[in-house]
Amino acid sequence: MGKNRLEAFSDGVLAIILTIMVLEMKVPHGATFAALVPVAPVFLSYILSFVYLGIYWNNHHHMLHLVDKVSGGILWANLHLLFWLSLLPFTTGWMGENHFAPAAMFLYGLNLLCCAIAYVILQNLIIRFQGAQSRLAHAVSADVKGKISPLLYLLGIGSSFVSSWLAGAFYIATACMWLIPDRRVEREVMTRSKD
Amino acid sequence: MGKNRLEAFSDGVLAIILTIMVLEMKVPHGATFAALVPVAPVFLSYILSFVYLGIYWNNHHHMLHLVDKVSGGILWANLHLLFWLSLLPFTTGWMGENHFAPAAMFLYGLNLLCCAIAYVILQNLIIRFQGAQSRLAHAVSADVKGKISPLLYLLGIGSSFVSSWLAGAFYIATACMWLIPDRRVEREVMTRSKD
Amino acid sequence: MGKNRLEAFSDGVLAIILTIMVLEMKVPHGATFAALVPVAPVFLSYILSFVYLGIYWNNHHHMLHLVDKVSGGILWANLHLLFWLSLLPFTTGWMGENHFAPAAMFLYGLNLLCCAIAYVILQNLIIRFQGAQSRLAHAVSADVKGKISPLLYLLGIGSSFVSSWLAGAFYIATACMWLIPDRRVEREVMTRSKD
Amino acid sequence: MGKNRLEAFSDGVLAIILTIMVLEMKVPHGATFAALVPVAPVFLSYILSFVYLGIYWNNHHHMLHLVDKVSGGILWANLHLLFWLSLLPFTTGWMGENHFAPAAMFLYGLNLLCCAIAYVILQNLIIRFQGAQSRLAHAVSADVKGKISPLLYLLGIGSSFVSSWLAGAFYIATACMWLIPDRRVEREVMTRSKD
Repeated sequence: MGKNRLEAFSDGVLAIILTIMVLEMKVPHGATFAALVPVAPVFLSYILSFVYLGIYWNNHHHMLHLVDKVSGGILWANLHLLFWLSLLPFTTGWMGENHFAPAAMFLYGLNLLCCAIAYVILQNLIIRFQGAQSRLAHAVSADVKGKISPLLYLLGIGSSFVSSWLAGAFYIATACMWLIPDRRVEREVMTRSKD
Repeated sequence: MGKNRLEAFSDGVLAIILTIMVLEMKVPHGATFAALVPVAPVFLSYILSFVYLGIYWNNHHHMLHLVDKVSGGILWANLHLLFWLSLLPFTTGWMGENHFAPAAMFLYGLNLLCCAIAYVILQNLIIRFQGAQSRLAHAVSADVKGKISPLLYLLGIGSSFVSSWLAGAFYIATACMWLIPDRRVEREVMTRSKD
Repeated sequence: MGKNRLEAFSDGVLAIILTIMVLEMKVPHGATFAALVPVAPVFLSYILSFVYLGIYWNNHHHMLHLVDKVSGGILWANLHLLFWLSLLPFTTGWMGENHFAPAAMFLYGLNLLCCAIAYVILQNLIIRFQGAQSRLAHAVSADVKGKISPLLYLLGIGSSFVSSWLAGAFYIATACMWLIPDRRVEREVMTRSKD
Repeated sequence: MGKNRLEAFSDGVLAIILTIMVLEMKVPHGATFAALVPVAPVFLSYILSFVYLGIYWNNHHHMLHLVDKVSGGILWANLHLLFWLSLLPFTTGWMGENHFAPAAMFLYGLNLLCCAIAYVILQNLIIRFQGAQSRLAHAVSADVKGKISPLLYLLGIGSSFVSSWLAGAFYIATACMWLIPDRRVEREVMTRSKD
């Protein structure tokens, strides 16, 4: 089974998640800049989740470059990842509208953690499907970021009832870490295109 | 007429249905975990409908693998299927917001039944269009799941005024049955790719 | 300039218009079938607009089969068509929520008329761009439906303040007329694929 | 890395932004034409933003015609552009619902300015990635419109507290300027396809 329709479908879902998040930023009724103030936390949450979705799209894009065929299990692992990502508009909106209250920081981190776990499951299924000479396995063999991220999310979740700011710092730091492109996978992709 | 644009359009519609369902989960105003409790039934409904849409996308994907050309009638049969699927966000939202009330369980099952009938109509039109040596006809000749599903939906619909839980059990059982991938179609696809 | 991205973008916009229309069907708060009654007119409007969008997607699909290259003017004529189609969720919702009141019937017909005019403009631009041996010009040379439709919309608009039912009958009749596939274009497409 | 998935994803996001903007036009409750009057400013704002999104889609389309490969940096510069474009439904809705109040005109112009800057950043990254013989660099070497636009936005932003109408005139004038297709890039594309 080809990977094209899987890519197209994932792109569609990610594009929609990205865009409907902005619907959580309700247009304020007042006509002054002061009326925008309550929207500010929702806007900040939107930026963070936009960056996270960009990271997932980017990594997904890189990962599928090393994939030729997909199995039924991979299709479902991909849908599982999209499920957790599709909850981001909800948890982002809740976090923004409640001005980063502890419970909302907790839930947002939990959502990020579930996305990360779903991504790892998808990655492992692809590696198992590709077998012994899996190029993806080779590319992610020393995936430090992928191993640190769940820990950082857990630290964020754990600290959310201590300090919302600390939890937020963990989520922002993880995003920043990922913004630096994954050289190893990129190198593997380039090596491959040269073959 | 090629099948590519049909696939792309169906993927687009399915991706949007999947994603806008999450908009029915209204962000609660409170900042405590207790504020999330009323959202729980909507969330559970969302999971079930997400799985159903995943099943339809998966089966649609498999079915179109055995299709080369489409007729005008097939285009409309596909739109007819998308119509019933597009009502899922509404019936899912109604079921969730009313905590699985009998009338809502009835309507949700009716919606699932209409989707199933529309899928069978589409399948039959493709088989008739492909003619005597239809590979799809061969692949679904012993389609037990496709024959049992409408019965299970009818049992769910019938039992919704007896017990909401029983109706829900029928809908969940049908989804679980479909999660097991359709080996016959997959085998046919593989046989074909080897040709 | 190729037509692929134009097709993909139009498919995306049409898929989204089709799907967000269902968001106008607000989930009712009651848990009885009686609570669904106020939704009924919105549902009926949804069916009609769904069929119209299906017709436009189908005809657009057929038309672009006879197109190889597109100009900047064609891109804008296509966006112009998408603009009027994008207003359908609004006019459909207004018609449904006001139980087919005269003003809403008037506006809905006006919207359909604008879509039809925009479609003709797009068709003419493509024919002019293709020049003397335009296959599209040949295919639509005796386009009876395309010529009757604006008249039917005008009759619907004109009769909307006499009788909402009459106006509705005109809009439904036009949709039914289009549901019969355009044999001439289809024949031209087939002739071409045989070349 | 190929550009196809970048194009497909951008098309998806642009199509959704375009379409969800219409959701800001809330269906009025009255059934008379008078009930439509409050929607008029939102409708006018919608037209302007629709045209702007059409311009961006068109220019993006032209620009990527001159691109073969994309880097990680280009992917992020593209997401950065999509971020500012995704805010248009919000700023458009605020402008329309507040009848073009000064603060809303200011914010709308600021949003347009950010989109323009993000577009220039994307363009420059592509040119740097293509290196010395960049066809895109050649095509936009005398990009008068690209240089004037930010100035016109700044004039609009600056005049928004003097006169909303003046600010609006600047934004409309800039859109009109762009509606005239970019002959230079088009010529470059044509030259290239002849190669």
